[in-house]
Amino acid sequence: MAKLFFRYSAMNAGKSTALLQIAYNYEEQGQRVALFTAAIDDRTGVGCIASRLGLQRQAHVFDDRTDFYAALAQESGLACVLIDESQFLTVEQARQLHRLANVGNLPVICFGLRSDFQGNAFPGAAQLLTLAEDVEEIKTICACGRKATMNIRLDASGQRVHAGEQVEIGGNNRYLQVCARCFYQGAT
Amino acid sequence: MAKLFFRYSAMNAGKSTALLQIAYNYEEQGQRVALFTAAIDDRTGVGCIASRLGLQRQAHVFDDRTDFYAALAQESGLACVLIDESQFLTVEQARQLHRLANVGNLPVICFGLRSDFQGNAFPGAAQLLTLAEDVEEIKTICACGRKATMNIRLDASGQRVHAGEQVEIGGNNRYLQVCARCFYQGAT
Amino acid sequence: MAKLFFRYSAMNAGKSTALLQIAYNYEEQGQRVALFTAAIDDRTGVGCIASRLGLQRQAHVFDDRTDFYAALAQESGLACVLIDESQFLTVEQARQLHRLANVGNLPVICFGLRSDFQGNAFPGAAQLLTLAEDVEEIKTICACGRKATMNIRLDASGQRVHAGEQVEIGGNNRYLQVCARCFYQGAT
Amino acid sequence: MAKLFFRYSAMNAGKSTALLQIAYNYEEQGQRVALFTAAIDDRTGVGCIASRLGLQRQAHVFDDRTDFYAALAQESGLACVLIDESQFLTVEQARQLHRLANVGNLPVICFGLRSDFQGNAFPGAAQLLTLAEDVEEIKTICACGRKATMNIRLDASGQRVHAGEQVEIGGNNRYLQVCARCFYQGAT
Repeated sequence: MAKLFFRYSAMNAGKSTALLQIAYNYEEQGQRVALFTAAIDDRTGVGCIASRLGLQRQAHVFDDRTDFYAALAQESGLACVLIDESQFLTVEQARQLHRLANVGNLPVICFGLRSDFQGNAFPGAAQLLTLAEDVEEIKTICACGRKATMNIRLDASGQRVHAGEQVEIGGNNRYLQVCARCFYQGAT
Repeated sequence: MAKLFFRYSAMNAGKSTALLQIAYNYEEQGQRVALFTAAIDDRTGVGCIASRLGLQRQAHVFDDRTDFYAALAQESGLACVLIDESQFLTVEQARQLHRLANVGNLPVICFGLRSDFQGNAFPGAAQLLTLAEDVEEIKTICACGRKATMNIRLDASGQRVHAGEQVEIGGNNRYLQVCARCFYQGAT
Repeated sequence: MAKLFFRYSAMNAGKSTALLQIAYNYEEQGQRVALFTAAIDDRTGVGCIASRLGLQRQAHVFDDRTDFYAALAQESGLACVLIDESQFLTVEQARQLHRLANVGNLPVICFGLRSDFQGNAFPGAAQLLTLAEDVEEIKTICACGRKATMNIRLDASGQRVHAGEQVEIGGNNRYLQVCARCFYQGAT
Repeated sequence: MAKLFFRYSAMNAGKSTALLQIAYNYEEQGQRVALFTAAIDDRTGVGCIASRLGLQRQAHVFDDRTDFYAALAQESGLACVLIDESQFLTVEQARQLHRLANVGNLPVICFGLRSDFQGNAFPGAAQLLTLAEDVEEIKTICACGRKATMNIRLDASGQRVHAGEQVEIGGNNRYLQVCARCFYQGAT
């Protein structure tokens, strides 16, 4: 029986690289995968999963109105569904993916952030954390050397921003991963 | 630097046993711990952490109004804070505990459920999942043999209940841990 | 398909408690389990799995000559095999258990130490670490506050011993769990 | 305090990709890392860490005679040591790296296989599994869909080989990752 997997991390950990590696692993075995990323994340072009290491690949896009049952009904013979930027899923979409894995017997592997620049949960990520049968962290480091688990937002001049909308797509230089101590006490 | 730990599981996995073991481990080293459980959970008496294996121990209680900064300011020389039934924490309390660990340098280990009988997140658990530096599952089994990750509520005659309040304290026989497939498709 | 699980830790972490909890979880579901412990470990009587928390229970014993295929052929309808003190398994026995899980479709959950008082691997534990489909640590603490991963041996007067046989059964007070830094640099 | 990390997997999981990602993460923060790989692994040239995704990078090489204390004494200001093909370390080298992490306070992250084509442990990998403070699996899949944890060796015509030396470097097409059931019962 398949499972719902959630691979979470702070910004700049290598989530997209890990996703592209898994896609490669399946395809090397002659198996088909479906890739999705959030339409809203257009940093490297709509529907492009891009790794800071230079890897990139086109994917289906999802937004709040995507019905994953319908979207995946068109695909046959899938071995796995891989979803990047899954913090932008709705709570209902996270539940759809949980059913697809456990009732539809289709492995679903989601990659995403846990918390926004204020330390609040992304609702879709919180639902994935709540339901996933397999939860793992992709680790990365804070400038201070501790493990980074939080994200801060910077303005154009590199100053930390404490207020604003939860979602504001920006380049890697608009967000910085930090450990919780630097998040609460950092000079930045 | 200390961390916030979240140990989650479905019902009847052994969370309280694991908590009492950790308390024992610290105290065996001559170190002091503070234990908390939810006031609302009075199955074995208010403030009692009880394991199905027969172990039990008194703890401080928390409810929605508990200020953990104030509650712990009274304790000195603590090596660790252990919190049972942490799905009943508020979002704000989960953030307090995250700060206590990362700014106050006091390890906080929370045990709790992830989802309620309808598969919805407990808000406090979702915030712990979002912030904890160390997240681990305590595994248990569904009657079908798969890993149980979900919980169902039963009425007095043992029939599954699909509607009701999120929180309704009952004996072990009011809740049953199941795998996601049985949750969605189970005959119960 | 079943798996071989290895749950490792340093001394005094709560391995036996965790094993007895899992046995309870299965039996509460009306499922049968088989328990084994090492014949050589007679601290609380031969064949007794005892937790420092006060729990205890009789188990089958194994020694170097135990053939697990034969031993388990006599049991029918087992849901799970639980093995305590699994660092005393031979390499061949670890491979038998791996086959029983993966070919015989019988979950096998082993609990044990990784390294002896000199930091050398127990051969059976090394083989379990090499083959197990699911490897997890049961964490405990060093007196210094870090995670304990190593074990030191003490003589009757509480002084650390650096030479001797790999296996020398003694009370809890003959062994102490420590972190790696204390293992290499500790004053004890 | 730093830790020794071991990231293990079967063949073709993406170990080298994961290693190169971590190197990138550190360097993006302006921190220095040292990379090592086994001299014996010359599939893409001596001292080259190459990912099947197309990434590659030069690294220091180690063989049985490498003294990591001496090798790393020449490097100053290192934030992390990354070692690929760490199954080829000697037991003594694994212990050196454990000391470097825990006494020298230098994080060491090793990537490697656990078992050879006969299911036997690589001695260096067994010692890493025995000592590492942080052990995690990089998961990949068997052609049958289960998680692959074992490796089989193929001859030039693609037939499985059951006898031979433990170490025999070959292209990706000389080794195949399989689950334990296929390892024991596979038709290949």
